[in-house]
Amino acid sequence: MTRETYWREDPAELLRARPGIRLTEVDPDSHPGIRGSKSDGEEELVEGAGILADLQELLFANSRLGDRRRILLVLQAMDSAGKGGIVKHVMSAVDPSGVQLTSFKKPTEEELGHDFLWRISKASPGPGMIGVFDRSHYEDVLIGRVRELAPPEEIQRRYEAINEFERGLVAGGATIIKVMLHISRDEQRKRLGARLDRPDKHWKFNPGDIDERELWDDYQRAYEAVFERTSTLEAPWYVVPANRKWYARLAVQHLLIEALEGMALEWPKADYDVVEQQARLAVS
Amino acid sequence: MTRETYWREDPAELLRARPGIRLTEVDPDSHPGIRGSKSDGEEELVEGAGILADLQELLFANSRLGDRRRILLVLQAMDSAGKGGIVKHVMSAVDPSGVQLTSFKKPTEEELGHDFLWRISKASPGPGMIGVFDRSHYEDVLIGRVRELAPPEEIQRRYEAINEFERGLVAGGATIIKVMLHISRDEQRKRLGARLDRPDKHWKFNPGDIDERELWDDYQRAYEAVFERTSTLEAPWYVVPANRKWYARLAVQHLLIEALEGMALEWPKADYDVVEQQARLAVS
Repeated sequence: MTRETYWREDPAELLRARPGIRLTEVDPDSHPGIRGSKSDGEEELVEGAGILADLQELLFANSRLGDRRRILLVLQAMDSAGKGGIVKHVMSAVDPSGVQLTSFKKPTEEELGHDFLWRISKASPGPGMIGVFDRSHYEDVLIGRVRELAPPEEIQRRYEAINEFERGLVAGGATIIKVMLHISRDEQRKRLGARLDRPDKHWKFNPGDIDERELWDDYQRAYEAVFERTSTLEAPWYVVPANRKWYARLAVQHLLIEALEGMALEWPKADYDVVEQQARLAVS
Repeated sequence: MTRETYWREDPAELLRARPGIRLTEVDPDSHPGIRGSKSDGEEELVEGAGILADLQELLFANSRLGDRRRILLVLQAMDSAGKGGIVKHVMSAVDPSGVQLTSFKKPTEEELGHDFLWRISKASPGPGMIGVFDRSHYEDVLIGRVRELAPPEEIQRRYEAINEFERGLVAGGATIIKVMLHISRDEQRKRLGARLDRPDKHWKFNPGDIDERELWDDYQRAYEAVFERTSTLEAPWYVVPANRKWYARLAVQHLLIEALEGMALEWPKADYDVVEQQARLAVS
């Protein structure tokens, strides 16, 4: 597998959540696998953007001729960790026709009337697409656990239900990449503060963000339980240090590129006779 | 209303489908309202991209505080006229979180079991979004009419049903922009030929494209009937000359910018006490 030139080591290896991982052991300021500074990072994001766009077009082209493969990128994080920035700065490189983005909010009454995977399943990406979940079914074992929105035995059941659900997606052709953007508590204070300081950012802030922030340690434990129970071979978790936005964006971009390169895609062969169609076209 | 600097006349005025419009009277090679060449067009697209992205963020920000406004861009055209290029080159400027794109294919069995507006209605954009329909309910009075997929009286009924449906969207906060990308028959031959000549473009070609092409004049008449019956004050049609891709992209980009500028959007006021939240954050 080739690699964009600026990675010194394979970030997929460096970032994968290992059994027993503790978030306190991952430095949110670090930038594993890559030397360089913010300004380099921005140039490199542009290099990767072209690669990613081309690979997604190949994936899409193959889907038109029956290939069932697709990507699902799951983004989870504490508020202000940069999920929106990943969507804006990484996914915008890809033809909008090839991206299927779903932002999961607090469930509606109708959604609560169904199993927690009902709305998730409906949003899973079609063949040839890169699906992106901005929040996901993992909220149901994160806020679900921290806020005790469901009894403990239901939370336990959900981990297994999630693994089963994801196995089904993989069997259907999906490559699943699960990313937790890892920021520090201080960094979050700074970012929320910046939203409060700028009138053009006020709309991004919600007083509830501070309520959640006060449960910081509980959320960190809930994430660790998620890694422990749902980081599988088929659908691994990656913990991406995200205090430096440029690093988080490059890392997620790379995970997508690596997944697509692993598919060894070629332009699909025409399922019609090219010469015959050229002749038809000439007289049409 | 301000205008990007390169337009000499308002393209919205120049391109709007007037009563009695005949497609033979619109030159697909022309570039109304703008001097300049392909290379200028590309620079100008970049200028407009930033403007469009900023305006969409404003629209989205307001929706978070209850504003119901949204945009719906409807794209219709003969094959290879450049719908996909508009999505790729114009819409990619906007944060993917703010775009809701739906590509309508041949209806499924389930969709055919419902009224033709069923699947359309489900895909209409939420507040703060720019919805894009790549093909739309207009297929049901275009291919529907040309291929006689429904009896003539049903086609007649649909024009009125469409107007009624669109009035409802407008009442709900939508600004509707309907675009027909207008290419010449010769230009289509050239473009389909290019797809056949390049193995990396074979997947974009379908022998059925030539079958449709052979009904060119019928389609042109069906489009004229669409303009006649459904170009309303609330939801006008624009006929965009599209033999020059750079022009069509600039024109559609401008129609979006003009619609957003017409909303006179400002950053929404916070619905919480900023100073109080700053104090809470400081001790959290």
